[in-house]
Amino acid sequence: MTTPRYIAVDWGTSSFRLWMIGSDGSVLGESRSDEGMTTAAKTGFAEVLAKHLATVGAPETTPVIVCGMAGAKQGWVEAGYIDVPTSLSAILTGAVSVPGQSRDVRILPGLAQRDKASPDVIRGEETQLLGALEPDSTGPQAVCMPGTHSKWVHVEDADVIGFSTFMTGELFDAISKHTILSHAVAGVDQSPADNSAFKASVTAAFHQPEMASNLLFTARSGQLLHGLSAAAAQARISGTLIGLEIAGALSDAANDTPIVLVASGRLQKLYETAFKSLSLKFTTVDADAAVLRGLSAAAAAIWQQ
Amino acid sequence: MTTPRYIAVDWGTSSFRLWMIGSDGSVLGESRSDEGMTTAAKTGFAEVLAKHLATVGAPETTPVIVCGMAGAKQGWVEAGYIDVPTSLSAILTGAVSVPGQSRDVRILPGLAQRDKASPDVIRGEETQLLGALEPDSTGPQAVCMPGTHSKWVHVEDADVIGFSTFMTGELFDAISKHTILSHAVAGVDQSPADNSAFKASVTAAFHQPEMASNLLFTARSGQLLHGLSAAAAQARISGTLIGLEIAGALSDAANDTPIVLVASGRLQKLYETAFKSLSLKFTTVDADAAVLRGLSAAAAAIWQQ
Repeated sequence: MTTPRYIAVDWGTSSFRLWMIGSDGSVLGESRSDEGMTTAAKTGFAEVLAKHLATVGAPETTPVIVCGMAGAKQGWVEAGYIDVPTSLSAILTGAVSVPGQSRDVRILPGLAQRDKASPDVIRGEETQLLGALEPDSTGPQAVCMPGTHSKWVHVEDADVIGFSTFMTGELFDAISKHTILSHAVAGVDQSPADNSAFKASVTAAFHQPEMASNLLFTARSGQLLHGLSAAAAQARISGTLIGLEIAGALSDAANDTPIVLVASGRLQKLYETAFKSLSLKFTTVDADAAVLRGLSAAAAAIWQQ
Repeated sequence: MTTPRYIAVDWGTSSFRLWMIGSDGSVLGESRSDEGMTTAAKTGFAEVLAKHLATVGAPETTPVIVCGMAGAKQGWVEAGYIDVPTSLSAILTGAVSVPGQSRDVRILPGLAQRDKASPDVIRGEETQLLGALEPDSTGPQAVCMPGTHSKWVHVEDADVIGFSTFMTGELFDAISKHTILSHAVAGVDQSPADNSAFKASVTAAFHQPEMASNLLFTARSGQLLHGLSAAAAQARISGTLIGLEIAGALSDAANDTPIVLVASGRLQKLYETAFKSLSLKFTTVDADAAVLRGLSAAAAAIWQQ
């Protein structure tokens, strides 16, 4: 029987995921909850971790590798940032030990881009990135990790050149709930059901990003003048914000830069549809699989396993 | 003594303004409140108007000319839209009478742009526009009416060619209050106090509109990495949204198109600063004076005064 070798934890702002990994690399147990940094900062990080370790029956000495917001200033132990440009492998060596624990617990650092014009930070996605890229990949790649704050990382060979955060998911939420467009999308589910409206808006915003805040308004004026459906209005908001994001993310990239989409579920489908409607070449890596692979690479580097 | 000739009313979504105008064109009385369409739809439009007429002591037969949301579908009496392209003077002839009133009450129509790609509507600003432009103006002009929803109208000679709405003010509000950036701007007044941060962001967004949702995020990452002040963070949000708006509004215009800014107070200062930092030529017309001049032109056309 395979024995537990290490515990991998992805500890975000609002979610917690733990896997127990065996000596043969297989997943021996898994535990998830919504006890992200925000919750754990109140109830205690050590307590949350202990509960999930008990859930999977982790032996007392199995070490733990953590990525994500647990390493933020307002998290458990600040794990700092690795400055870009940097090699991907530097992330593996920057882990910080959590003091006072009965077992070895380490938290991986984030990435920081400190130049004055485009300051930016990443925490958690650097580990997805580690897991998403082939170790021997060459040439430029643009890695897209969509979400509340979408992260686009520009990689050349095995070096991180720079990255940009786009507030796409959060803007979608704020605009859909807290502007006049909330009336336009009333009663619609989260997923844009109107695929053709979504594609048209992605294309419009990609080619005319300067019209973004006007394109958003057409979700309303289109209803007033053309009887646009609520589903189409929502697809227009979503498509405009995603088209704007892609235009920005690729503005400094060569036209044929390969895109690696790290996503799953609803966001994966949305971004795949967007890339296709713009005739952009991309490959998809499952987001969960990527973070687990990244944590495993870190565990292997730290504990020479 | 000059006698009351007509009553001019600018009835917006959230504000009500009434002027009593004498036979010599002078303002004999004025009354304002926050009884805009939203409030009046509940308390009664006729009642709100009667109260303000009493405040200024309007004679029983003095006619009333109204512009704004009182003419919307959800307003008092729907005044419809004049389709663009149109001559400015068509607005004057499209007024609708409010039935069942003891005095003559008319509401001016809005403007509609019905093409499929860029549907848009204006209600209220068409009257500001009437008052802002010289009757004998020639050539192309871009008229900017900033606000919750900024309106840019493209005029050629005395014809309205087309227009665009940008959700600048409402986006600023939703982003400042309902995203992670609310922490970045906590405790700051509404007016951007950091002028240099504002100008830098206007310029950045104008020249790289595709980076808008990334530039917004730098209000936070700039604080994390460079100790950006809350005032500068707010100026960055405001500047980014205004720079994006101007880039979009002028994207189809010739470089030397004269801009007419119709604004007052805080917004006037903000947009003047933005235009100057982009080296754009503009003239400013006071927004209150413009709407009153527009209403007067309509009164003169309707009642041959």
